[in-house]
Amino acid sequence: MKTQIKNITLPDIVEEISRLETDTVLLIVDHNVWSKYSKDLPFDKIENKKIIFWKSPDGEKVKNILDFQNVIEFFLEKGIHRNAHLVAIGGGAVSDFAGFVAATILRGISWSVIPTTLLAMVDAGIGGKVAINSKNGKNLIGAFHLPNHVWICPTFLDSLPDLERNSGMGEILKYCFLEYSIYDLAVKKAPLDQIITACALYKQKLTEEDFKETGARRILNLGHSFGHALEFIYNLPHGEAIMWGMMLIFKIFGNEKNINDTKLLKAALGISAQTPPWHNKEFPIDKIMHFLSKDKKISALNSINLVLVKDIGNAYIENMSFEAIQNILENNKDELRKFTL
Amino acid sequence: MKTQIKNITLPDIVEEISRLETDTVLLIVDHNVWSKYSKDLPFDKIENKKIIFWKSPDGEKVKNILDFQNVIEFFLEKGIHRNAHLVAIGGGAVSDFAGFVAATILRGISWSVIPTTLLAMVDAGIGGKVAINSKNGKNLIGAFHLPNHVWICPTFLDSLPDLERNSGMGEILKYCFLEYSIYDLAVKKAPLDQIITACALYKQKLTEEDFKETGARRILNLGHSFGHALEFIYNLPHGEAIMWGMMLIFKIFGNEKNINDTKLLKAALGISAQTPPWHNKEFPIDKIMHFLSKDKKISALNSINLVLVKDIGNAYIENMSFEAIQNILENNKDELRKFTL
Repeated sequence: MKTQIKNITLPDIVEEISRLETDTVLLIVDHNVWSKYSKDLPFDKIENKKIIFWKSPDGEKVKNILDFQNVIEFFLEKGIHRNAHLVAIGGGAVSDFAGFVAATILRGISWSVIPTTLLAMVDAGIGGKVAINSKNGKNLIGAFHLPNHVWICPTFLDSLPDLERNSGMGEILKYCFLEYSIYDLAVKKAPLDQIITACALYKQKLTEEDFKETGARRILNLGHSFGHALEFIYNLPHGEAIMWGMMLIFKIFGNEKNINDTKLLKAALGISAQTPPWHNKEFPIDKIMHFLSKDKKISALNSINLVLVKDIGNAYIENMSFEAIQNILENNKDELRKFTL
Repeated sequence: MKTQIKNITLPDIVEEISRLETDTVLLIVDHNVWSKYSKDLPFDKIENKKIIFWKSPDGEKVKNILDFQNVIEFFLEKGIHRNAHLVAIGGGAVSDFAGFVAATILRGISWSVIPTTLLAMVDAGIGGKVAINSKNGKNLIGAFHLPNHVWICPTFLDSLPDLERNSGMGEILKYCFLEYSIYDLAVKKAPLDQIITACALYKQKLTEEDFKETGARRILNLGHSFGHALEFIYNLPHGEAIMWGMMLIFKIFGNEKNINDTKLLKAALGISAQTPPWHNKEFPIDKIMHFLSKDKKISALNSINLVLVKDIGNAYIENMSFEAIQNILENNKDELRKFTL
């Protein structure tokens, strides 16, 4: 199966859902999205289907095992079947969560995503990686479960807070380093719609080549091993954490051109962040190392695959021991304290 | 990937585990099996691997979301990675549960099964259907996740209680109706080892053709739609419930030859059950219909696919409305009250 990625308008949403080939639709909708857009989403007008509606709490909070259990029991109680189709409307947390529900309820039903944040449009909504969080880290309980459709409706971006916009831009920055044509769109200041579609299609292409993330897809993790640690330690928005995770990679393993490219792209994409969260503080090596050792992407007890970048469009994987990483961080910690963009 | 099914002896178990291509093995072992066989399973002698051991409570009890969460957090806490391998040792409940843990921890790691009951050797351990239970029914939260190995060690059957042996025979009876060569082994009273292997390989063959159970594999559900309802209503062992589920199918939709074949096979396999749980009682139509409507195999709101049998080796799927099933049960309820084998 291949995910259909399509740009749609707000009024198309109800239309697309009523065209799904099922008699039963399970909706998981972010409560903020619902409070802003419920009048534009008249699901009660859909006549040919049973619609079961569940409103999701804010952000990452929903990605816990209790809500997972509650929503599954709620849908089962209402009466569903294997041909039911789940539609997630919300940011990355909602699609991660809803996708894991779709992956496991009745051993898996089909699903679609309507991402409502910039981050979800270019990242979380694409590629079928779905999960909830563990006490031991983010996304540690999950599955690979491709959505049938990703419907991108840029109208949702009109009400997106700056913080969330910035966060999405962090992931777009990542794509610019992975794929020259996206870098090119960014520096030429192409319309955001166009950049979003380019990122989504690029991620989809890698996903098709390597669904279970054992090969090519792994370069999408650029900035993520350190980024997830920073996200947790400093409670940062995901995309911003990924940006600083990339900066760590560039600063320690990369070159001056990586940093200059970042500055250029940051200006072009209108990203405002300038100082890393560890600026002028003790660089948190122990916390980062502890977090890296729990990363779900590690494939042995004492090493991790890092994504490094030679140049725009030229990323590669390098397996590195935790000991070597710790040494490099120790050797660079004074310089890192001073680093700004 | 194809599951390797192999007969092994008790001392082979530690040997096979130490040969797995990983540095980390997660063990989920049934506590009864452990109390009987721990001296034969010296996992502490495995030198080349980190072994993380979790003892599973008795039977179906483990298949709940709280134990699911507990065991996942336990393994994550101990430090694991994507190349870790999980080994389940126990009956069908343990392999269902452990397989769902393997399917979801870090978005899925590889796993193997050592089934210790007759039922698990011929059914639950084979084919990668894994799940935990919901308040709304059995196995409603799960995944399809093939094990790398199924190691069948018939020694475990020496300590199997009669009740569990009988339960396994119920599933073997089902295979006899699906595949002539298994019917033939049974009526010729072939050694049990041989019948087990034939059933396991037959199920594996169907599983390969139709992993997600949308086509040929569905005939394995012979007796299961009614059987799951009976299992729940009368608290019966699974295999026995499946046998009575098949009898309902034969009695209502089948023919006299089906019933005569059952009698012949029952004697050959040494199955002792003679009267169905509803014998001389009110036949529980409402409860059965309520349960059928929640069955995870239904594919529309008002109908279900039933597996029917023309003759040995000749099963087929028939979609039937709940209304039609209810009517047929109503028309047959007096006769069903009196039915014995």
